[in-house]
Amino acid sequence: MTNRQIILTTVPEGALGPHHFELTEAPMPAPAQGEVLLRTVLMSIDAANRSWMKGATYRAAVQAGDAMPTYAICEVVESASPRLSKGDVVAAEVVWADHVVRPAHKVQKLPPVQPLTHLLSVYGIAGKTAFHGLMQVGQPLAGETIVVSAAAGSVGGYVGQIGKALGCRVVGIAGGAEKCAFVRDELGFDDCIDYRSTGMFKALRAACPDGVDVYFDNVGGTVLETVLGLMNERGRVVCCGAISQYDTDTPTGPRNLPGVVVVKRLRMEGFIVMDFARDDAKAMRALQAWVRAGQIKVTEDVVEGLENAPQALIGLLNGENRGKRMVRVGPDPT
Amino acid sequence: MTNRQIILTTVPEGALGPHHFELTEAPMPAPAQGEVLLRTVLMSIDAANRSWMKGATYRAAVQAGDAMPTYAICEVVESASPRLSKGDVVAAEVVWADHVVRPAHKVQKLPPVQPLTHLLSVYGIAGKTAFHGLMQVGQPLAGETIVVSAAAGSVGGYVGQIGKALGCRVVGIAGGAEKCAFVRDELGFDDCIDYRSTGMFKALRAACPDGVDVYFDNVGGTVLETVLGLMNERGRVVCCGAISQYDTDTPTGPRNLPGVVVVKRLRMEGFIVMDFARDDAKAMRALQAWVRAGQIKVTEDVVEGLENAPQALIGLLNGENRGKRMVRVGPDPT
Repeated sequence: MTNRQIILTTVPEGALGPHHFELTEAPMPAPAQGEVLLRTVLMSIDAANRSWMKGATYRAAVQAGDAMPTYAICEVVESASPRLSKGDVVAAEVVWADHVVRPAHKVQKLPPVQPLTHLLSVYGIAGKTAFHGLMQVGQPLAGETIVVSAAAGSVGGYVGQIGKALGCRVVGIAGGAEKCAFVRDELGFDDCIDYRSTGMFKALRAACPDGVDVYFDNVGGTVLETVLGLMNERGRVVCCGAISQYDTDTPTGPRNLPGVVVVKRLRMEGFIVMDFARDDAKAMRALQAWVRAGQIKVTEDVVEGLENAPQALIGLLNGENRGKRMVRVGPDPT
Repeated sequence: MTNRQIILTTVPEGALGPHHFELTEAPMPAPAQGEVLLRTVLMSIDAANRSWMKGATYRAAVQAGDAMPTYAICEVVESASPRLSKGDVVAAEVVWADHVVRPAHKVQKLPPVQPLTHLLSVYGIAGKTAFHGLMQVGQPLAGETIVVSAAAGSVGGYVGQIGKALGCRVVGIAGGAEKCAFVRDELGFDDCIDYRSTGMFKALRAACPDGVDVYFDNVGGTVLETVLGLMNERGRVVCCGAISQYDTDTPTGPRNLPGVVVVKRLRMEGFIVMDFARDDAKAMRALQAWVRAGQIKVTEDVVEGLENAPQALIGLLNGENRGKRMVRVGPDPT
């Protein structure tokens, strides 16, 4: 019995393409004492995956020849540890593969939530990133204005909906008229600005008549530069990601930094979701309450098949997803 | 009787030069009811003066034809207000001139400190900016490493000496070997790196073997980009100024922003000294204690004569000052 996995064959310079990956077959791995054999069910596709190829971040760099790492929801199919049993559903850091062996203490048993996809979207990495970043770093108050970029993406969509639930004015930024309509009409943002259109600064200024108090930045680059020009004094910039800078070898910095930070006394602060793991239970409780109340709509974008993971990531970097993108590798456990 | 004042005749594009200013004579102003006539004694020369010409900041932009604004120490020579008497020594926002009329409620009577110059340097805008920025925004702890740019300048020198008094490792950045020697030998920094030399990144890395916890940024630009690459996780960047960006029409942003802020979970925060005015008494008490204990050396750079104010500012923007630069317009009150 063999096991499919996808290798990053070369580290990309410039834009990521399908030729940077290869689907290979290897013998089925077997768990040693203390390990479990996992079957991959759903793999999270994130912009951060691309940043991992650029060097060491909060994790070691992905190098040429490595199986591509990912967060995933898996089923335990064989256990050599008393910690876990066959049939358990777990979250784990694995690789793009049908099966992976991991130490049992490195995987986390999941609560019984249905559908499982919600454990990657609203109750998973996307929803928790939005919740912790907005609440703990951005700290918006009712009546303030929040701007969020990549608003049609997984994190951005939840940021805006949480902001609306808190009583804020929420303006999204997304690429293209169709996405902006989705953000306004489906997600209920007050407005959404197309960053690809000309006159983005004027459009955003018109959409934010009281200025911007919190900017949740998923993109960096020129969009960040533009929003900084509209921030109010004492505004907060939640630095969550910089997708505009990942898929290139010639990153550009906002030219108004750090001057505008001084003049307006801004706070820019970075975070990653794991920093706030101790508050994950609070996030889960709040997100469930908002979902039940109909204040958060769960948006998911599921790509079928392990072999389509490279294109799922490439497409995400080009902004083709709506909501949380994931790849279904196999069926839910029965 | 006439009054000399210096006008900004044109708003500079690119570097500031003497041709942007003109010394003029006007009739001596007279105070109306509620106003005072001030004689300028000492004018503060600050990098921020140049940024005021670039547009609205925390104050209105300086425009062509305006007398050049400044903070100054003045003597009341005629009072039409019960608030102040002839002979009082005050701090005021005035202009580059021998005499200025101001509303009495807009000027602040000064405590009896000698020499008066200390009220612009260690106990004035420079020392308070260093104290509030480092203590309230940077929040260093003993044993941490502080890096400060423009270390031979007014604010930078006090930042480093306060850091040493707190038990931190302190590394300066300055332009040229002579200035670096001043920072190390006269101000007592642990080390000082010449940003004009090649290999600044490597030199700074060697000087900060435990990484950088607090970066007090007075310059922005490529120096900021370099230090960001050496910050520790959870590091704090105190955004005080961006002198490298003021005297140019082609500012450059650090290319690693905001990516490095996310990955290292940095906090970058801007401030201006007036934000912390309510804590000025604390600053004064602490600075006086350190000066008395010999832990802070007061460095001042006094240029004589109102007519030399333009060159004093131009020279400061080119980094020629050591310590707090000011212009003496007239003698101390007797």
